[in-house]
Order: sequence, then structure tokens, then C-alpha cells
Amino acid sequence: MRIAVDAMGGDAAPEAPVRGALEAAGPGAGELEVLLVGDPELLGEYVDGREGEGRFRIVEAPDRVEPGEPPALAVRRKPRSSIVVGLQLVADGEADAFVSAGPTGAVMAGSVLVLGGLPGVDRPAVAAVVPTAASPTLLLDAGANVSCRPRHLHQFARLGRVYLQDLLDTPDPRIGLLNVGEEEEKGDDLVRAAHRLLREDPELNFVGNVEGNRIIEGVCDVLVCDGFVGNVVLKFYESIAGHVVGLLEEHAGESRAYRRIRKVLDYAEYGGAPLLGVGGVSVICHGASPPRAIRNAVGAAARAVEADMVEHLARALPRS
Amino acid sequence: MRIAVDAMGGDAAPEAPVRGALEAAGPGAGELEVLLVGDPELLGEYVDGREGEGRFRIVEAPDRVEPGEPPALAVRRKPRSSIVVGLQLVADGEADAFVSAGPTGAVMAGSVLVLGGLPGVDRPAVAAVVPTAASPTLLLDAGANVSCRPRHLHQFARLGRVYLQDLLDTPDPRIGLLNVGEEEEKGDDLVRAAHRLLREDPELNFVGNVEGNRIIEGVCDVLVCDGFVGNVVLKFYESIAGHVVGLLEEHAGESRAYRRIRKVLDYAEYGGAPLLGVGGVSVICHGASPPRAIRNAVGAAARAVEADMVEHLARALPRS
Repeated sequence: MRIAVDAMGGDAAPEAPVRGALEAAGPGAGELEVLLVGDPELLGEYVDGREGEGRFRIVEAPDRVEPGEPPALAVRRKPRSSIVVGLQLVADGEADAFVSAGPTGAVMAGSVLVLGGLPGVDRPAVAAVVPTAASPTLLLDAGANVSCRPRHLHQFARLGRVYLQDLLDTPDPRIGLLNVGEEEEKGDDLVRAAHRLLREDPELNFVGNVEGNRIIEGVCDVLVCDGFVGNVVLKFYESIAGHVVGLLEEHAGESRAYRRIRKVLDYAEYGGAPLLGVGGVSVICHGASPPRAIRNAVGAAARAVEADMVEHLARALPRS
Repeated sequence: MRIAVDAMGGDAAPEAPVRGALEAAGPGAGELEVLLVGDPELLGEYVDGREGEGRFRIVEAPDRVEPGEPPALAVRRKPRSSIVVGLQLVADGEADAFVSAGPTGAVMAGSVLVLGGLPGVDRPAVAAVVPTAASPTLLLDAGANVSCRPRHLHQFARLGRVYLQDLLDTPDPRIGLLNVGEEEEKGDDLVRAAHRLLREDPELNFVGNVEGNRIIEGVCDVLVCDGFVGNVVLKFYESIAGHVVGLLEEHAGESRAYRRIRKVLDYAEYGGAPLLGVGGVSVICHGASPPRAIRNAVGAAARAVEADMVEHLARALPRS
């Protein structure tokens, strides 16, 4: 198993992705090897003498997509960027999956460009794991598609179902639709039409509309929404978690309570968000990912490969 | 000053609204009187012997809009419901404002029906105060309008500006637009067009797009969004606050840290959400409002009356 890691992506690159990747491929990781994709000169100081810490190899990619660059344009203009080179490794069969904390839009655009879309998927979606009071919920789309049609939300539900079956051992995931009320006639035209599609799909365990205040309870395993509201909710959640952890540090110190609450809210634990619906495993991490998040994302990518997730996804989508 | 309070509205009615109303009109409240609108027989046990606790009078309304009733239909069919009777008191000049923890949709529909809309306002908006790490942010629309056009978001900004000027002594409120990125070309068609309208309005102190993770920082005073995303964010926020307070109770007990964090997150402190854009002061409270939230909502309603808010709002809207 080989996972390509974008060593140039993220606010703390190359140190954070390199450290996280080495941890993921360290002793006990079995046959896992990481390909560190980036500028060998820049990576040098972070890998020198670390040969014992994890199985790795450097793959040269001298260029880098910068935050703020127009994503689609950037990936076309920078074929030697770490994002494009890393994804090309997957497309060529040199790597089994790609993990990046680079600019989200560029990783998405690159994934579609290099890996292609799966048949039956109009729009790949970012699937983010959200901690709840019960088991975590998979929120999608978390930001790839700001404008959606009802059939896109339906496809997201199908994609999320397979992901949970393969990756989180959830045999019949409960599918919820994020909405402003529980009754089926609630919401705008998009969610009302999506509600009908979800309800009428016999393969889905659709539990109905889920209001914003129920998310934290973990009332469904897959929560479907358009990428605008998904992006807002996800970023808001992360920031509140950070805010509360900060308040706790300030006022509670290193207590048992602090550690317990921090664990519940700690987002980095969950690592990356897979892009579902493209022809390969591509996991997107936060720009601010610490090594631990990268390590977890590599682990999630490896499990997706082992589970043949992409093949299962390709079979799960109705061809329209 | 007379504030009509829906004594039949909310999960804990009539006890919670009656207790909150009496607290608001208690000793030290000056000339404030509350009109408790509801079924006199049901209210009896909660007001008997409490004449010394606050200046109040009971106004008979034998009927009640139940949660789940279609809002517009319910307010038409139930002219003797506490919502319609309370709002009619405002329309008739018998009361200066109305406060209700009854079903949100019914309070909105009733307010539009009985008080009418202000000229220049296509859609009244629910304005909710959201605690942040800095000063609170006014989020609107928080759920009245699930589908909006760019000009509606522009009107929300105008409404929010006047509300903050009048009620929270903010001379030149910073207006933000909730979006998935900071750059002006980010988002869907609605927010991109709204961005232009907000930017081009010389009377607005528009600070640009605000991402979900910045809400908690308090980077703007008024945060504009459509009622779908506003409703989801608001409910999500409230539930997270409740969740964290629950974790704190469980793990930290009654510590100084607990009290401090609870205060930051405690939503009830802020009370009701005014419906902006109708021809009178109408404040909507949560169904789950405890007496303290009702008391604060009555206080907010009284301040809106004193500040001539409705008149100022009517002047602030461009006639299109």
C-alpha cells in the first residue's frame, strides 16, 4: 500500500505533512509506505535521519498551488505542483491514494481533472466527519458544490452510504436531510424535492429531515446538504470547538474535565475529508492540519483503499 | 409602556411566560406593565397572590395556536388565539409591543397579518443575537425566509443596521455577508449578487464576506444570510452551547471555569429575536424559553419601543 502525501500543502508545510506522514508509516504500520510529494530541497531537513521513523520515499514536485489561486486554472497551469503530481501517481497506479492539506478548491479541481468523475456522479462531494454526542456523522457536501440540484443531494446520500458501509462498518446508515423543520414540506424547493427523492429510494434508510439543533445529537449517520450550508456549518463547528477548548484552557487548566471535553470536541482527531465521486481515493485535510490530522487522514485513505471504496461507490450510483 | 406577553406560548406555558413577564414588570421596572394574554382560568393559579411581584393585567384569549399547525392558516382560523389577540393589542394601540414563545411561524404570520409590513420591506426577517468571543452579532434572517433574493439580503442589512443603532448603541454597525469564502466571487448566485448590492450601498459599513469559522470571533455586528442557512446555524449554535454546558456539568461540576464558560455560551441570557420589517414591535422567543429569556425579551421589546425602532426602520429602507 502506497499513499502519496502532499508535502507542500497546508499552513505548516512541509513540517506538518511530513511528520504526520512519517507517523502514519511508522513501525506497526505494516506494508504502508508514504510518498512525500514536494520539492526535495525543502523536504530535506525534515526527513534527513528519519529513515527509521517510517517507510517513505520522496517524489519530486517543485511547484506548489498557493492559497487564493483560482483552483481550476492553477491545476492546469501547474502540472508539476505537488497536488497534480500526487494525484497523477494515483492515476498511474504508482500510489493507491492521495492526501493533501493544500487549498481545498485546488485539490478538488485536481482530483476531478486527473482522476476523473465516477459514472452516475454529477458532482463529487467533500464528506466531513462531524463529532456528535453519539457516533460521528458524515456531513456531505461539506463545500465542493455551493449550488445543488435535488438529484445531487440524492447522489450525496448514496455516496455517503457506501463510505460508511466500507469505512465505518455501518451496515445500513441512517440518512438525514439537513433542513429547517422536521415536516417534509419544510424548507426551500431544493430540499423539498430532495426529500421526495430520498424517501422514494428503497435502498436508503432515510430518517427524514434533521434540524440544525439535532446535528450534535448524532441522529443520523449521513447528513446530506448543499455545499454552501455544509461549508458554513462545518467551519462554524470547528471554530466553536476551538473556542470552547480555548476557554477551557484559560479557566479550567489541565483537569480531567478539560481532557474529556477536549476529546469530544477535538476535531483534529478525525483528520481528513474524502472527496467522494472521483475515480480514486483523494482525502482533503485542513490547511491548519497538525501532524496528527495528517496521520489520521493517511490512515483513512489506507482503509478506503483496502475496502475497495471507489469500486463500491461506482456501483452504488444509479445511472441516469 | 405596556408589553403584551403571550401567556399560552412555549413548551412551559403558562408558567414560564407568566413568571418571566412578572419578573420583567417587577419592582424597579418603572412604568412597565405587562398584559398577560391567555385563558384566564389557566393563568389563574400562576398569578394568584402575585400582585406584588409585577404590574400586570390579564387579557382574555381562550384559544391557542399549537405547534405543527400550518402557520398562516392557524392565525386566520384562530382570531381568539393568544398570538392574534396579543398582536391586535399592538395594532390597536392598547399595547406597545408583543412578546411570544409560541410557534415561530405563527408569530411571524400573525405579525405580518395583524401589524402589516413596512414600506420597502419585501420580507420581514427574524433577527437573532448570537454570542461571540467579542460583542454579540445580530444574525438575520434567522429563519423567516428560506428562499431569498439578493435584494432581500440587502434589506436585511438595512434593518439590522437600524436595530443595532437603536438598541445596542452601535453607531455604524459592521455588516458582514455569510459566505463560503472571503473573496467576493465566492458563493452561489444569491450571495455574489448580494455582495455587490451591499458593497455599493454607501450607507452601509460593509466588511465583506464572513466565513462560518469567523462567526464566533465577532468580526461583524450584523451578519446577513438567507433564512435557511441562518436557521441551521442558529439552531446548531444553541444545541452546541447546550451540549458543552452539559459536558461541563458532568465533568467540571460547579467550578469557576464552569460558571465563566456557561455565561459565554448561555443563550437564554439573550432572550428573544425581534421580527424586523413589520409595523410594530414583535419579539419571538424559543419554545423552550425559561422565565429569564422571556424577561429579557420583554426588556428588549421595551427598549425597541423607547427607541422608536419601527419608525426608524421605516425610514431606513429604500423604496424600490
